[in-house]
Amino acid sequence: MTNPVLVELTRGDIVESVHRGSVAVADSQRRIVFALGDLDTPVYPRSSLKPIQALPLIESGAADAFGLGDEEIALACASHSGEPMHTTRVAAWLKRIGCLESDLACGAHPSRYEPVAEAMIRAGEKPTRIHNNCSGKHTGFLTVARHWDIATHGYEQIGHPVQQAILQILSELAEISGEIPYGIDGCAAPNFALPLAAQAKAFAKLTASRGERVVRAMTAHPELVSGTGRTCAVLMRSAGGRAAVKTGAEGFFAGIVPELGLGIAIKIEDGAGRAADAVMAAMLAKYGLLGDDEAAQKILRCPITNTAGEVVGERRVVGIG
Amino acid sequence: MTNPVLVELTRGDIVESVHRGSVAVADSQRRIVFALGDLDTPVYPRSSLKPIQALPLIESGAADAFGLGDEEIALACASHSGEPMHTTRVAAWLKRIGCLESDLACGAHPSRYEPVAEAMIRAGEKPTRIHNNCSGKHTGFLTVARHWDIATHGYEQIGHPVQQAILQILSELAEISGEIPYGIDGCAAPNFALPLAAQAKAFAKLTASRGERVVRAMTAHPELVSGTGRTCAVLMRSAGGRAAVKTGAEGFFAGIVPELGLGIAIKIEDGAGRAADAVMAAMLAKYGLLGDDEAAQKILRCPITNTAGEVVGERRVVGIG
Repeated sequence: MTNPVLVELTRGDIVESVHRGSVAVADSQRRIVFALGDLDTPVYPRSSLKPIQALPLIESGAADAFGLGDEEIALACASHSGEPMHTTRVAAWLKRIGCLESDLACGAHPSRYEPVAEAMIRAGEKPTRIHNNCSGKHTGFLTVARHWDIATHGYEQIGHPVQQAILQILSELAEISGEIPYGIDGCAAPNFALPLAAQAKAFAKLTASRGERVVRAMTAHPELVSGTGRTCAVLMRSAGGRAAVKTGAEGFFAGIVPELGLGIAIKIEDGAGRAADAVMAAMLAKYGLLGDDEAAQKILRCPITNTAGEVVGERRVVGIG
Repeated sequence: MTNPVLVELTRGDIVESVHRGSVAVADSQRRIVFALGDLDTPVYPRSSLKPIQALPLIESGAADAFGLGDEEIALACASHSGEPMHTTRVAAWLKRIGCLESDLACGAHPSRYEPVAEAMIRAGEKPTRIHNNCSGKHTGFLTVARHWDIATHGYEQIGHPVQQAILQILSELAEISGEIPYGIDGCAAPNFALPLAAQAKAFAKLTASRGERVVRAMTAHPELVSGTGRTCAVLMRSAGGRAAVKTGAEGFFAGIVPELGLGIAIKIEDGAGRAADAVMAAMLAKYGLLGDDEAAQKILRCPITNTAGEVVGERRVVGIG
């Protein structure tokens, strides 16, 4: 099926660009209660998988054994901006489990927070693997390996017990038997492809006790999950703790709404984050979870300005009532 | 009509994201000789319009009166990276016509060439309007106003004679009578929306004498039209001067092929430049204009690597034989 247009960008009186995609919302009884577009073709959740990838850390007892709190759990679920609030905590956590930066399998990339990235350039500092937006997730993986007292080397390989534990949990949450296809994510860890309907059902499962700790950690520390001014932080603050949301690369976005028992999964077919952000804001608004704060409203409906500061068009969501 | 998928991005064995779009190729007899997707809805060419926006500079006699050469014409057609090769030439040109940086209506943004952007951050230098990728186009507009001895202030307004001259030329090239809708571009100048078929026909007209000077300037100075390593430069160098190509924002790409009398217009519906780049490479390959150099071949078909440097998928063009 052809995915419907979910987001339009205008310039003057013309629609300049459109984004197509699909949306699935499941309730805690595994019913699909809202559906748009293709829910059947396997797609990668990318970093939206992190709240599920963090479950072995909790369920293995590793988090408790190493005395980890909500801040570390939030970082395990994070695509962070590499700000000091993230890097100092990841560095301390690595030290606590007796690991080094060089144990991280992810590569380095600059901080996503411009003032930090620019300050590092001015100081002649190179980004490290700890600056990688996934460094918290990887430190979580290492923590599980440490707790199980198994090899940390190769922890990001599909055959490693930590990745197999994630695959097992994902199969349970999505109630999928049989093989789940995987690809390698930007950070070198496996990422698993599932139909959007199955993903919404898996996230809906996290509204119950199994997801309690990740949801609490994410909603308590929205900036640790993302960064200063980032979409996840703005939307979680706007929702006042009533929803945990997590972006993924290539236009994915996941939401967990405990009080309604809902799991939300969004995939923009062309991979545009600008569209996924707007659609998640619209879905939160649909369920009465979006506040009227300017930052959140600008994610929902955003004026497009030019380099001279003039408003020349807008980005808006269409087709979500 | 629904635009076909033109580009796929894979990860592992899964297609992760797709880009839909339309392509029109017209010959010098105004026949559409290749068509994919919607050619009828008006779309903005954005910066792909620059070779046409440069025509008043040539046809008014302003370029000759101020002794401008191919380098300045190339800059008038450019979305440049704000490298010293661009900024020093624009600054000298402004001086030659007796204008100041503050006469430019475009805003400032950082250089798009990372080593320059980083060097400026290290030196504590702020980008100026001359760094704006459109500063050559704007200096061209100012040059026409100077030549006509009319007010330069407001040269970017739709009612100014320079913009009206562009609109007149565009109407002639596209053979459109009646009103052409416009919007305001990122640089504050008007941009005009036309159906893709009409745009291909207009670019095909530039394969004849009317386009000779812009095509010569662009193909002689590919890096002045874009910048070090940028797609337009790579593709024009790969084509060995046989095609002039020009990107536009939001997934537009235009090509002029004098020896075949062809005008090419591409619009990716979701605005993705990564897809427009690949489709232009495929169109050049289709007409035997793409060399086998690695840089150009990587625009056509590109491995996707992660932060650890591993190949995890690819970007490829589909449906263009």
